[in-house]
Amino acid sequence: MTSVPSPKAIPHALREELLAVAHRVADAAGKAALPHFRRVGLAAENKAGETGFDPVTIADRQTERAMRDILAALRPDDGILGEEEAARPGTTGLTWVIDPIDGTRSFLSGMPVWGVLVAVDAGDGPVLGVIDQPYTGERFTGGFGQAQFRRRGEAPVEIRTRPCADLSAATLFTTFPEVGTPDERAGFAAVAARVRLTRYGADCYAYALLAAGQIDLVIEAGLQPYDVQGPQAVIEGAGGVVTDWQGRPAHRGGRVLAAGDARVHAQALEILSRMPG
Amino acid sequence: MTSVPSPKAIPHALREELLAVAHRVADAAGKAALPHFRRVGLAAENKAGETGFDPVTIADRQTERAMRDILAALRPDDGILGEEEAARPGTTGLTWVIDPIDGTRSFLSGMPVWGVLVAVDAGDGPVLGVIDQPYTGERFTGGFGQAQFRRRGEAPVEIRTRPCADLSAATLFTTFPEVGTPDERAGFAAVAARVRLTRYGADCYAYALLAAGQIDLVIEAGLQPYDVQGPQAVIEGAGGVVTDWQGRPAHRGGRVLAAGDARVHAQALEILSRMPG
Repeated sequence: MTSVPSPKAIPHALREELLAVAHRVADAAGKAALPHFRRVGLAAENKAGETGFDPVTIADRQTERAMRDILAALRPDDGILGEEEAARPGTTGLTWVIDPIDGTRSFLSGMPVWGVLVAVDAGDGPVLGVIDQPYTGERFTGGFGQAQFRRRGEAPVEIRTRPCADLSAATLFTTFPEVGTPDERAGFAAVAARVRLTRYGADCYAYALLAAGQIDLVIEAGLQPYDVQGPQAVIEGAGGVVTDWQGRPAHRGGRVLAAGDARVHAQALEILSRMPG
Repeated sequence: MTSVPSPKAIPHALREELLAVAHRVADAAGKAALPHFRRVGLAAENKAGETGFDPVTIADRQTERAMRDILAALRPDDGILGEEEAARPGTTGLTWVIDPIDGTRSFLSGMPVWGVLVAVDAGDGPVLGVIDQPYTGERFTGGFGQAQFRRRGEAPVEIRTRPCADLSAATLFTTFPEVGTPDERAGFAAVAARVRLTRYGADCYAYALLAAGQIDLVIEAGLQPYDVQGPQAVIEGAGGVVTDWQGRPAHRGGRVLAAGDARVHAQALEILSRMPG
């Protein structure tokens, strides 16, 4: 294990090590989560109590545990920020930001668009990220200026976001209309009114499609750091732009705007930045 | 090739033949469609002109052609009703009702929830149906009182819809809010307000999840016969109920209500049947 001299300058050997560990973490997560997917009678608790539907399953907790076990063995001095367990501070300047099952509603519905999210935050955002869909066997990885797609049993390929000069030609994805405040829904609707095609409910899979050059925009709100950091690293590695609705860094979560092309990012930002905070 | 004495009494040998042909048709469709999926720069025309976004791609047409070629070779006297080409009348009392790529918007966005739909209509609705997702390698088949799921490389398993006693426990899928008249959207919203979880945009994949006991309700409107007949046969084979919003036969399309359990079907119907026609 190597430690980090500065978050800004991560040496090549450490990059390779982090990437290898990220793959191990994603592998372990998929192995833990998959036996629960489409299992009849999967129990779901209601984490949000009376205030909303936020199912948490035994699958979530077992999966995060499997991810943390790998990190404890291979990167014991790094921090961990995950969805299910308390944050663990580290001493290296690196924090693993993990979401065992992003898209629990999809998971519970049998839809293969949930994902395992892994990121390494070097202090001011993710330098490396993974979006993994264990059922389809698809893994999207990004960081350090590049991004890759690998499907189980196939060779990895480089991915890039696609050009999109104008909102009128854009395909937009979101989890809306299901989440967000009325202001957030209004902001989303104002952008949606300008795009060519809007689609709903794809969870983190939408970010993967953006990185792979299949769609152009993702707009979300109410995100946690572990919801955004893995996708952010993949999209940035593929040439895209990820910010909050004011154009500021997105890695702390909240309102997120991701685009494959800086031009449609700017056009969407011009609309979203007018929404009350 | 056998011909049909009566749509009501299809002999065992003919059932087996039709099922085998349906698999061949779905195989050919997947082979034709898949090379176009996630191909960068896939061109889409706008079939609906100024009135809406209804992309038609070369993939749709090539795929339907491949399906028709199989039927011309193996069942030349049956009728064909498809999305892309003119209906072909038959002389056997059987009509193949086919949709080469149901969920074109998902197809164009890289989302693996579009599907190839195949059905055999014996005059008063489908007796056999297939929902196939070529990218994930999943095939759902139903008819003659049973239904099966087969994933590429795995053994087929019987599928059944799941029990759901009350709307308050139901998971509902739809393509809404993207399609439908204001009345239709209102009808949908009235049911959605009663269920536990609503998800959007899964196209025909939602029907497959319903048949496989993962979700409880699908509500759609504006469907064509080829949008509903394949799913209807799969769901009915798995023990579910498919009607229009008045409880009448659904195989001609229009407004469709599909449920895994007759109890939630009745509860949703009670709401939807009040909507103006």
